[in-house]
Amino acid sequence: MTKLEFKKISIIGLGLIGTSILHAIDAKKKEGVTTFAYDMNSKHRDIVSEMKIATFVCDEIHDAIKDADLVILAIPVGSMKSIAISIASSLKESAIVTDTGSTKSSVINDVIPYIPKSVNFIPSHPLAGTEYSGPKSGFSSLFENRYWLIICDKETNETKKLASFFTNLGSIVETVTAEYHDKILAITSHLPHLIAYTIVGTASDLETDLKNDVIKFSASGFRDFTRIAASDPTMWRDIFLNNSDAVLEMLQRFNEDLSDLQKAIRKKQGQKLHSFFSRTRSIRKKIIEAGQN
Amino acid sequence: MTKLEFKKISIIGLGLIGTSILHAIDAKKKEGVTTFAYDMNSKHRDIVSEMKIATFVCDEIHDAIKDADLVILAIPVGSMKSIAISIASSLKESAIVTDTGSTKSSVINDVIPYIPKSVNFIPSHPLAGTEYSGPKSGFSSLFENRYWLIICDKETNETKKLASFFTNLGSIVETVTAEYHDKILAITSHLPHLIAYTIVGTASDLETDLKNDVIKFSASGFRDFTRIAASDPTMWRDIFLNNSDAVLEMLQRFNEDLSDLQKAIRKKQGQKLHSFFSRTRSIRKKIIEAGQN
Repeated sequence: MTKLEFKKISIIGLGLIGTSILHAIDAKKKEGVTTFAYDMNSKHRDIVSEMKIATFVCDEIHDAIKDADLVILAIPVGSMKSIAISIASSLKESAIVTDTGSTKSSVINDVIPYIPKSVNFIPSHPLAGTEYSGPKSGFSSLFENRYWLIICDKETNETKKLASFFTNLGSIVETVTAEYHDKILAITSHLPHLIAYTIVGTASDLETDLKNDVIKFSASGFRDFTRIAASDPTMWRDIFLNNSDAVLEMLQRFNEDLSDLQKAIRKKQGQKLHSFFSRTRSIRKKIIEAGQN
Repeated sequence: MTKLEFKKISIIGLGLIGTSILHAIDAKKKEGVTTFAYDMNSKHRDIVSEMKIATFVCDEIHDAIKDADLVILAIPVGSMKSIAISIASSLKESAIVTDTGSTKSSVINDVIPYIPKSVNFIPSHPLAGTEYSGPKSGFSSLFENRYWLIICDKETNETKKLASFFTNLGSIVETVTAEYHDKILAITSHLPHLIAYTIVGTASDLETDLKNDVIKFSASGFRDFTRIAASDPTMWRDIFLNNSDAVLEMLQRFNEDLSDLQKAIRKKQGQKLHSFFSRTRSIRKKIIEAGQN
């Protein structure tokens, strides 16, 4: 039995992340913890009600947050502004509000103007996910041994309390700035997703026979890309719209490198290709050493 | 105890594919089958000797093929020509020679001119692999439930015999033309590898602090790419040099699609992004239905 840092926790948004948080709290056999769950989609609320992973599933967002010590916004980053506006006046004094969005500068810009001074908004982002989405996709171990980044310039009692809560859900907590977060995520997550979406899109435009055989004979490379490219379209649309600067910068570097390799293939420069492909191997080795494989 | 179609089998090249074939034959508890193994790298020969997965490990390529009914060239496609030249005069009459290379038009051009008329050269390609390479990376189940493509225009007794042998190793055999094979592989395997190599290369050029944090916080997208980009550099250099036409054609289509998405991000065209990302989901669904996930 783990004692959690918050007694009344509100989860707004019942997709993969929101329901995984509910599952993870539930798995802790929480003592005296009440969870309030809300999603604007009534079908998602019904599913979570049936799963019995929240103490209360609320039909009104106001009811889900008014008593909460901790409010977690687990919604697409494009919805942060409208949700911030709609919850602002109902938040309890001294409550902590966090979010789980994959872009941080945009979320800060969208949320901060509306949150009362008496409430602590501490943006965060769990580096965890799968290609599945929706209320049935969550599971309690999603955050185990995964980084959960907290965005703050200086440590406070509130950031420490939140960090401790995330640690209890199984995460490793680190603190970064919003700008740095957005740069790292642009290269580790957003650009790879964009590329995967592109290549699967390119394949889906092939003439029918060839496309069907591409699906049939999908070798390991393409298969991995299709898994990435099966992620939630709304979430990813919002990410690209809200981290466009960092993504476009990384995309420009990527395009330059790809042009180089394209030229090397056209000019049959074997040595250049070989040395490029050897260099990338060492990055993989470091990731395996870092235990994030 | 499975009866194999060939009594004397020669495996040239003792990397992932070559040793996996030896493991797979070994696992069949073959009756009266003799395997001859050769690699130009003496260390690889020593490792395979120690593993005891071949009846004979030969120090000379000539000894490894002279008695064989079936010779399998499991070497990088860039080495096919020189190996074809060196084995041509030692091949047994009516022997079947196949290869496992990932590009087929180039292999046919490199091998056919040197193979005697009395020998049957039937190119093939198992759509199976991992990011690991070398003689210790092989395992007996690598080909199970994976396609093994045979390149031929018409079925003969020899192609049927070879197909039956691959089926016995666990594969599903299909027949395609060389040109069609090279097109399919360009999009399902070669382009994804090129893209993965590029993005990992782009990351490895970042300033040191950022690069280290990219490795530390590698979220699922990038992590998958590093696995693909850890594949054998020599093998992949050869593939790009030998299937350059099909790869460059697919790369051009990919670049056009990527430019479209880049523009959509810059112009904040949310609807366009959303519909693109929704379309790619259906391809994943079809791959899962095809049982190749």
